[in-house]
Amino acid sequence: MITRLPEADLPFPATAVKTSVLQSEHGQLVFFQILDDVDIPAHSHKAQWGTVLEGQVELTIGGETRMYGPGSAYYIAPGVVHSARAPAGAKVIDFFEEPDRYKLR
Amino acid sequence: MITRLPEADLPFPATAVKTSVLQSEHGQLVFFQILDDVDIPAHSHKAQWGTVLEGQVELTIGGETRMYGPGSAYYIAPGVVHSARAPAGAKVIDFFEEPDRYKLR
Repeated sequence: MITRLPEADLPFPATAVKTSVLQSEHGQLVFFQILDDVDIPAHSHKAQWGTVLEGQVELTIGGETRMYGPGSAYYIAPGVVHSARAPAGAKVIDFFEEPDRYKLR
Repeated sequence: MITRLPEADLPFPATAVKTSVLQSEHGQLVFFQILDDVDIPAHSHKAQWGTVLEGQVELTIGGETRMYGPGSAYYIAPGVVHSARAPAGAKVIDFFEEPDRYKLR
């Protein structure tokens, strides 16, 4: 049901990250399924909230690095620089304030 | 950011359950924030997937009762009867196959 949703057009090959996007005029929610270890370089945008479903994801938010496991959640305020290291097997949900955070594939 | 989303029109007072809905033609995703203990009687509909963010929620799915805590997820196949007991303080995300599972308030 979830994997039938449209995919985000990410700067990663589809073999590394599988995405499933639910989008309305109020924001964009993305289910991320990490298939191969990925490093997401430092960047910033409008507000983002996320939670980890499976695996351990390392997030650096505003210079502070922490591991996030299943059941933990994070909020990234607008404009705050953040980066991530996500190992194969991780599953994450992110909700973005911007309805057009990612283009769809 | 999330609590600014539209609310679902539930058969519970807004003082018991706060909802935030993201909806597209592919489905409806609802953030549930339980403010007062609620019992959701047995019912069924199209497929549902959910995960618990905070608190412990008791779900009975197809006759099997289990507690779900932060980081756990569940899938309810189409037509399978289910009910829930959610205590005050619980936070859950549910994704429904039906884009119109709930009307908006």
